[in-house]
Amino acid sequence: MNDIGRNNNNTNTNGHQVQRELPSDPTLRRLPWYLAYVTTLHAQGVEFVSSTAIAKAINVDASQIAKDLSVLGLRGKTRIGYEVPALEKALNDFLGFSHMHRAVIVGVGSLGAALIADRGLSRYGLNIVAGFDINPAITGRSIGGVPVLDMARLDELKTVYNAEIGIITVPVESARDVADKLVDAGVSALWNFTPVRLRPRPGVAIKNTSIYAHLAVMYKRMKASEDSNI
Amino acid sequence: MNDIGRNNNNTNTNGHQVQRELPSDPTLRRLPWYLAYVTTLHAQGVEFVSSTAIAKAINVDASQIAKDLSVLGLRGKTRIGYEVPALEKALNDFLGFSHMHRAVIVGVGSLGAALIADRGLSRYGLNIVAGFDINPAITGRSIGGVPVLDMARLDELKTVYNAEIGIITVPVESARDVADKLVDAGVSALWNFTPVRLRPRPGVAIKNTSIYAHLAVMYKRMKASEDSNI
Repeated sequence: MNDIGRNNNNTNTNGHQVQRELPSDPTLRRLPWYLAYVTTLHAQGVEFVSSTAIAKAINVDASQIAKDLSVLGLRGKTRIGYEVPALEKALNDFLGFSHMHRAVIVGVGSLGAALIADRGLSRYGLNIVAGFDINPAITGRSIGGVPVLDMARLDELKTVYNAEIGIITVPVESARDVADKLVDAGVSALWNFTPVRLRPRPGVAIKNTSIYAHLAVMYKRMKASEDSNI
Repeated sequence: MNDIGRNNNNTNTNGHQVQRELPSDPTLRRLPWYLAYVTTLHAQGVEFVSSTAIAKAINVDASQIAKDLSVLGLRGKTRIGYEVPALEKALNDFLGFSHMHRAVIVGVGSLGAALIADRGLSRYGLNIVAGFDINPAITGRSIGGVPVLDMARLDELKTVYNAEIGIITVPVESARDVADKLVDAGVSALWNFTPVRLRPRPGVAIKNTSIYAHLAVMYKRMKASEDSNI
């Protein structure tokens, strides 16, 4: 299960993105933890950080951290560690946060409207350029400069808005129909916030973020913790 | 890796919650998919559903579905399948969505405010009863009847608001400090929306929902899909 060994060819000498195999999902989940910590260090003016120091701060094994960071093609120096600004930049580049991805959002209810309003997403490479809804009380206005359009205009997502990602924040009963329409309109990725399981399509990346499923996991852990305290 | 076999004692004859071992996280992630589908069927007036029909609709193996649903202590009938309303209720009960959990939220920026405004969360057992922030431009008002208070009043989360869950939607540099304060104030669970890795504490459940980490996974899948199309 050495997912690091697969990335032997990732040294990037010319500054361009080279083709490499994907790191494992667990590695991809940990890299943003390191980025969050390193960003804080950078803001504090810290110049170097060792994997041991990161390990202590965020409670991940130091050897795991060194392995994870090796996918970046960066090596820490003995006793000194990694250069903080270089590590921050390498993490942002590797995670795709320094390249802007254009997205539209379908379903401008409270969650959809919040994602449009969340300027923080642009720090992570996501630029939401339009919203779509079927509710005439919502369409026609704009949120922070982002227009909210009628679903009938969804095909403009490519022709007018040049978007590659479709974000789905509709009620469960509409989720699959909306996914079909987004794929027909030409998106290459679906970010699905509903608990609905979408059919996979060739050439279309799907990422599910069901915050309700996360709630269920949290409730179970709370219950387990109560039971163990009795 | 049979995580179902551990749940032999889960038949619940008296209607009360019985102590049982936790299902695996993958099972817990799939159960909300079934619930979303079954809820749609219920709304359409469908009375029975088989695991084969669920499998076809949501693209999960039928035997996996039957295994997952066995943690509920329900059995489908041959040729007929599961009673839809009973299955919906059992899923809601098992996932903790039919019991209301009181929560406070720290960090009432765009995401925090959206979660407070999202009435949909109450359908999943989450009742956000107060928000906290350090910004005087935000505190003192209320969102949909939920008060937004100064952080100095955080200890009221137990004494006044009787909350058991603390939701963290602050900037990364404040996340760990806020987690400490929430635990000191007596919460038994932290729902962390920042990419910051929190220290585990005995008796406190932690669930991380870092939507930015999900973005990184989606970007990688898009890139892999592009590479494979060249």
